[in-house]
Amino acid sequence: MQKKYFLPEADIPRNFYNIIADLPFAPDPPLHPATRQPVTPEDMSPLFPMNLIEQEMSGQGEIPIPDEVREAYAVYRPTPLIRAARLEKALNTPARIYYKYEGVSPTGSHKPNTAIAQAYYNKISGVKKLITETGAGQWGSSLAYACQMFKLECTVYMVKVSFQQKPYRKTMMNLFGAEIYPSPSTRTRSGRAILENDPDCPGSLGIAISEAIEEAVQNEATKYSLGSVLNHVLLHQTVIGQEAKAQMEQAGVFPDVVIGCHGGGSNFAGLAFPFLRDKIHGREVDVVAAEPLSCPTLTRGKMEYDFGDSAGFTPLMNMYTLGHNFIPPTIHAGGLRYHGAAPLVSALLQHGLIRAQAFRQKDIFAGSTLFAQTEGIIPAPESAHAVHAAIAEAENAREAGQEKTILFNLSGHGLLDLSAYEAYLNGQLQDETMKETA
Amino acid sequence: MQKKYFLPEADIPRNFYNIIADLPFAPDPPLHPATRQPVTPEDMSPLFPMNLIEQEMSGQGEIPIPDEVREAYAVYRPTPLIRAARLEKALNTPARIYYKYEGVSPTGSHKPNTAIAQAYYNKISGVKKLITETGAGQWGSSLAYACQMFKLECTVYMVKVSFQQKPYRKTMMNLFGAEIYPSPSTRTRSGRAILENDPDCPGSLGIAISEAIEEAVQNEATKYSLGSVLNHVLLHQTVIGQEAKAQMEQAGVFPDVVIGCHGGGSNFAGLAFPFLRDKIHGREVDVVAAEPLSCPTLTRGKMEYDFGDSAGFTPLMNMYTLGHNFIPPTIHAGGLRYHGAAPLVSALLQHGLIRAQAFRQKDIFAGSTLFAQTEGIIPAPESAHAVHAAIAEAENAREAGQEKTILFNLSGHGLLDLSAYEAYLNGQLQDETMKETA
Repeated sequence: MQKKYFLPEADIPRNFYNIIADLPFAPDPPLHPATRQPVTPEDMSPLFPMNLIEQEMSGQGEIPIPDEVREAYAVYRPTPLIRAARLEKALNTPARIYYKYEGVSPTGSHKPNTAIAQAYYNKISGVKKLITETGAGQWGSSLAYACQMFKLECTVYMVKVSFQQKPYRKTMMNLFGAEIYPSPSTRTRSGRAILENDPDCPGSLGIAISEAIEEAVQNEATKYSLGSVLNHVLLHQTVIGQEAKAQMEQAGVFPDVVIGCHGGGSNFAGLAFPFLRDKIHGREVDVVAAEPLSCPTLTRGKMEYDFGDSAGFTPLMNMYTLGHNFIPPTIHAGGLRYHGAAPLVSALLQHGLIRAQAFRQKDIFAGSTLFAQTEGIIPAPESAHAVHAAIAEAENAREAGQEKTILFNLSGHGLLDLSAYEAYLNGQLQDETMKETA
Repeated sequence: MQKKYFLPEADIPRNFYNIIADLPFAPDPPLHPATRQPVTPEDMSPLFPMNLIEQEMSGQGEIPIPDEVREAYAVYRPTPLIRAARLEKALNTPARIYYKYEGVSPTGSHKPNTAIAQAYYNKISGVKKLITETGAGQWGSSLAYACQMFKLECTVYMVKVSFQQKPYRKTMMNLFGAEIYPSPSTRTRSGRAILENDPDCPGSLGIAISEAIEEAVQNEATKYSLGSVLNHVLLHQTVIGQEAKAQMEQAGVFPDVVIGCHGGGSNFAGLAFPFLRDKIHGREVDVVAAEPLSCPTLTRGKMEYDFGDSAGFTPLMNMYTLGHNFIPPTIHAGGLRYHGAAPLVSALLQHGLIRAQAFRQKDIFAGSTLFAQTEGIIPAPESAHAVHAAIAEAENAREAGQEKTILFNLSGHGLLDLSAYEAYLNGQLQDETMKETA
C-alpha cells in the first residue's frame, strides 16, 4: 500500500488562493481604534509594504505567486502527503487517515510559507530590515530563515522567559543570521517602561509585539512582520491545501473531514481554505479547527471587535476573542496561546462553514505519542491537537463502522519541544483549564 | 532546475548489497582473542541470532530484504536525493553537488536502516529483548524505535555524562518505549566494579558496551545489538547507496566523487559500497571517507588486529586503529569518536579503493553553517564532515574549472545537536587535536 505522495517541484502552486472571492458573505473590515472607521492602506503603511497591504485587502480569488517565491519554496516544497497506515492499524479503524506534513521545512513548521513570501514582497519594496516578535521561537526562526534567503536584516524580540528556556530556537535564529533581543529590552521606550516597574519581568507576546512595532515604525526602510491572524498571512499558507488537494486526487480520494490545529489561524486556514472553496460550491466536507481547552478562543470566545495585541496598538478586528487582556495558562503548545482568532476563520465559524473543538493537554500528548510510535514522526505540541482530533474522528468511524476519509495538517515536528514529551511521559503534565485574568 | 529526486516505495531496494562478493581480495577474518583462530558462528551466538551471524560471514553478493523489513523502511524510505543548487551558487562552482538525505528517518539519521533489520532478524529468531549501549543517543534511539516496531523490549546503557547532558535523546528513547540506564550502573558486575572505585565516574562507551554485553549473555532470549563496524551492519546500510544510484540515474548523472563521514564506517559504507561495486568493475569514481582530525583512525591509525572495545571483550579485528585504549577528545561529532574502523572499510583503504581525509572541527562547522543557510537543513555534526569534504571538492573544481559531479551522504540532521552550533557561533569551539592516552 502506498503511504507517501509526492508532487514534482513544477506542481508547487502558481497562485495563492484568496477565499474572500468565494465567501457567501462580506467579511467585516478592521477598524481604526480612534475613529472606528475601516482602516485605510495608508493607516497600515508604516508597518507593511504596499504590496502586502494590497493582498490584505484584496478580493481577487487567485493571486499569482512570483517565480522567486516558488523557487525559494522549492527548498522544501511540495511537502509530502502521507497515509497514516500504521496509525490506522493501531486504531483498528476502517477510516483512512491522511496527513499533510509541513515539518520538512527548514525550521520544522509551516511558518516559512508566509515568511518567505513576506520577505520577498518587502525586499522588492526596498525594505532593508524586518522586525518581529516570537514566543517559543517557531515564527522568529522562520522569518530569520526567509530574511537570509532574500538578504534582508532581521531583528526578533523574543519573550524573555522563552529566550532563557529555549536556547535551541535562539541558536537556530542565530544560525540564520537574525539579531535576537530578550523582551522586555532596554532598546525601546515600551521595553524600558516595563523594566522600570519590574526589572525581572519575564516578558509576554504582547510586550514583544509592542517593542517590535515601536522599532519598525521609526524608519522607512524597516517594516514589521506578523506570522498569523492577518488575511495575507492566511493567503500565503494556502499552498498547503492546494498541494494536499492534488495529492489526495493522486491517492484517488476526497476527504470527508479536514482538520487543522488553531492558534492564530494560519496553518488551519492553509489546509482548509482550498477545501472550503469546494464546500462553498456545494461539495460536502466537514472542516474542524482543534484548539486547546486552556485557550478556547473559538469554542468559548465571543465574536466581537477586539484588539490583536494586549497593548491596544493594532486595529480592532471582528473575531472570536477571549479578550485582549486574557492571559492563557502556560501550556506546551505555545503557538496556540492567543486570545483571538483570525477574522476570516472567525467569520467562517460564525456562518457555520467550519466547526471547532477544544481538547485537554494530556489527551493531546497521549495521541501524539501513539502517532510518533506508529508513524515515526514526533508532532509539535501545536500540531498534536490536529493529530488528536483525527484520532477521535477515526475512533468514531470505528464505532459507527464508517469508511471515512480524514485529512489533517501535521503543521510541524516536535524535535525542539521534547521537554513537553518528557513531562508527559513522567506524568508531570498539568491539565490546565482556562483562567480568566484581568 | 529540479532539486529533489524521489523514488516510489516500490523502489525500496529488494536486496542488501554484500561487497565481499566483489572484492578483489579476501578480507581477514576476526580472531578469537584466546586462541587467535578465526571466530566461529558458535563463538558469536551468545551475542547475535544465527541469521545475523550468517549475514556477518556471508560471501553472497545479494541478500534478499524480507518484506517485513521493506514495509518498515517505507515509513521513511526511499529517502530523497537532493541537488544542492543553492550551495553550488554560493560557492560559485561549476561542480554539481548532490546529497542523499537520511535525516528524514524517525530518529533523524541513517541508524534505523540497520536497527530495523536487526530487530526483525532477532524477532523471528525468538529473541524477546535487545540490549545495546549508546553515547550521544543516536543509535540508542534508533534501536528503541525499531524494537517498538517489532514488539521487542529494549534496554539501552547510555554513557552517564550524555544521559545527564542530552535529555532530548533520552526522551526520544523513552517515547519509543526503551528502558535507559546511565552507565556505569549498579545493574551489572562491570558497572558496580567501576562505581566502587569511582562513584562519580562519568562513564564511557567502552564501559557501556561491557555492561550491555554482560546483560545480554545472561539469558537465551536477550541479545546484543551493535550500530556500526560489523559486516552485517554495513550490509544493511547499503540501501542508501542503491537508492542513490537509482536517483542519480534519474538525474542523468554518475558521480565523479562519493563522500561519507567516517566513525565506525556504516553510513560511509552504506552510500559508498554500491558505487565501489562499479569501481571494482572498472568505472572510475573517487571515494572519500571524511573523519575528524581529533580521531583520525583512517589517516593516522595503524592497520592491525585490535579489539573493538576498550575492555577487550570482542574478537580481534584487522582494521585501522588508534589502539583500543585511545580516548579521543570530546568533540561535538560524538558518533565519530571511535578508535577503530570497520574491517571492510579498512581493507578497502589498504587496497587503495578508497581514500581518507581528516578535518578540523572549526572548518566543519563553517561548512555546515553555510550549508544550513543555503540548503535549509542543519547537518548533524558527524554528517558535517561529509558536507565540508564536498565543499572542499567543489572549491577545487572551481579553481580547476572542472564540471565535477559530487555526491555525499547527509547522514543526519543536527536539530538535537544545536548546542554545538551555539558553541561555534559564539566562537567557543576548540580545535581539538589528537591526544595519546594510555
